[in-house]
Amino acid sequence: MKNSKMVLYYYLGRGSLSQLKGLLDGKRGGKSDAFAVVVIDHYFDGKNLFSTDFLEHQDLVIYADTTEEPKTSYIDELTDLVKERGQLPVAVVGIGGGSTLDIAKAISVMLTNPGKSVKYQGWDLVKNPPVYKIGVPTIAGTGAEFTRTAVLTGPEKKLGINSDHSVFDQVILDADLLKTVPTDQFIYTAMDCFVHNEESLLGRINDAMTIALAEKSLDMMKEIFLGEMDHEKLLVASSLGGQAVANSSVGICHPLSYGLSIVLGLHHGFSICVAFNQLEEYYPNVKVFKEILKKYNIVLPRVMEGVTEEQLDIMAEATLKNEKPLSNAFGDDWKNIFTKEKVKDLLRKM
Amino acid sequence: MKNSKMVLYYYLGRGSLSQLKGLLDGKRGGKSDAFAVVVIDHYFDGKNLFSTDFLEHQDLVIYADTTEEPKTSYIDELTDLVKERGQLPVAVVGIGGGSTLDIAKAISVMLTNPGKSVKYQGWDLVKNPPVYKIGVPTIAGTGAEFTRTAVLTGPEKKLGINSDHSVFDQVILDADLLKTVPTDQFIYTAMDCFVHNEESLLGRINDAMTIALAEKSLDMMKEIFLGEMDHEKLLVASSLGGQAVANSSVGICHPLSYGLSIVLGLHHGFSICVAFNQLEEYYPNVKVFKEILKKYNIVLPRVMEGVTEEQLDIMAEATLKNEKPLSNAFGDDWKNIFTKEKVKDLLRKM
Repeated sequence: MKNSKMVLYYYLGRGSLSQLKGLLDGKRGGKSDAFAVVVIDHYFDGKNLFSTDFLEHQDLVIYADTTEEPKTSYIDELTDLVKERGQLPVAVVGIGGGSTLDIAKAISVMLTNPGKSVKYQGWDLVKNPPVYKIGVPTIAGTGAEFTRTAVLTGPEKKLGINSDHSVFDQVILDADLLKTVPTDQFIYTAMDCFVHNEESLLGRINDAMTIALAEKSLDMMKEIFLGEMDHEKLLVASSLGGQAVANSSVGICHPLSYGLSIVLGLHHGFSICVAFNQLEEYYPNVKVFKEILKKYNIVLPRVMEGVTEEQLDIMAEATLKNEKPLSNAFGDDWKNIFTKEKVKDLLRKM
Repeated sequence: MKNSKMVLYYYLGRGSLSQLKGLLDGKRGGKSDAFAVVVIDHYFDGKNLFSTDFLEHQDLVIYADTTEEPKTSYIDELTDLVKERGQLPVAVVGIGGGSTLDIAKAISVMLTNPGKSVKYQGWDLVKNPPVYKIGVPTIAGTGAEFTRTAVLTGPEKKLGINSDHSVFDQVILDADLLKTVPTDQFIYTAMDCFVHNEESLLGRINDAMTIALAEKSLDMMKEIFLGEMDHEKLLVASSLGGQAVANSSVGICHPLSYGLSIVLGLHHGFSICVAFNQLEEYYPNVKVFKEILKKYNIVLPRVMEGVTEEQLDIMAEATLKNEKPLSNAFGDDWKNIFTKEKVKDLLRKM
């Protein structure tokens, strides 16, 4: 039986980033060597899009390169960089999208746990309590701000550090930070949450809480994307989606998207969209997804153009490694239902 | 700006009460003098309705008298009883309905904060961190398992200890515990949550999170009571309702119910029903509430029969003391809109 861990504190409201200063000052306790690690998506570097008055001179600011999804080697490198200070930071803050938040989570865990991060990819492998951490999403839909995973790409597999220790202690939901996100990026990211919800609801692993949260999150997404855009509401829909998937599992779409990402280097949200678009036989809300694409004039490109048979094979293998999501979707007998040929057929359409 | 505190851990599932033993053993750490305080609703005394194998001989079990709603004097008495042990317990557990959960919350706070409990009725008056506490609802709808309040009746006012320190650290949602609740009691309690949601949604104080949670909780309640009864789903609806009201406020119904409770000693859920039944001019879902009463063949009795003008006056005064809920419902000018005469008119119909 699972003891579900929740984010202990959250701020919600435009301008709530201003609360970060007080939170960090409280942790520093006036000590001049007490420093915070602040991981900010490199997109914001030099752009002055928000005030950084929460920083003190001793803080370590890392503008994280999220061109590619976070690799375990990158986490190890950043962790070593922090360790050079010779003492633990009082907080690790992540300000950015899902990748940035996952980097912050992973650093907070790796600072207090020995070895390389690849060792902790899996479920409940983290032993020592992590450094206190704060998540500030600047885009909505990853749900990363409320989940217990930090998704990392290792040399062999893309798999999260799934642990209660990956859960943020504090989240700040400030819709003002979403203002500069381009529309297509918005859609790709929000669809991650949309698809999470659909996979949770139509899978075998869920409970009354997951169902309630995923249903509501999905309804809100539809209202937002087919009705009126509302950044604050989108942040809430993402949070509920993040909480929902915590007690469930993804399904067919995420494994396929991992295959795409690993071989083609596609960003998570985008590859989720590319994969989901071909899954109408499994997921009724693919229809709604297509309506949304149409409304926002988004035409998904063909990504499989020029992909070799060998690459296709690697994609299919990477997809089929995701035992938990696929048995969630198809049951214990999933291998006989979702065959390699079936996976390849689906991939070829993308 | 408000930093919303959430329950850190929850179990959800039939039989999840069995997890209590592990949680308490973990806190006792094998020490023979490490004891837990377990507050159980007196309804369960001698009934053997659930296994108490989580108890150790050194634990202090309190079968709480919830015939009346918890008084501050009762909390002080129970706190003194615990203090006689000469050391703090490792945990305070509440197993019961809203009153029992509120008693457990209040004891956990009062064990580490000086003076009488009446001193802490209000908002954010608690200074010292409380004893670790676990809430196990045996009825759904109070939302008490997820709120930051412990409602107490003092010599002068019925008002909660509203504090982050009143939030449970751990909640166990076990639908098996709801099996023996009589139908009318079920309805009265669930309606508390139903009304909370309606008051939150139609009030001025709320945010995107409150709205999402209250809407979903309300929808689920309608599905459960007009469709199929589902205890687990009801526990979830109650939890979401509890979280929703945490970022909002009650409205017109709760203050009226407090007036009824104070003079007539009516139980909270029941007086909520009696009051809500007369509020169709303010709350559209009174109509749905009446459908539910009809479906379950519940006829609310007249409670004002024989009430004197003097008593009516006390009720109206008690109602009008609730400034926050009433300004939530009517705005800053509430005193000119919701006059004493109007309150008396409404009360007379009940």
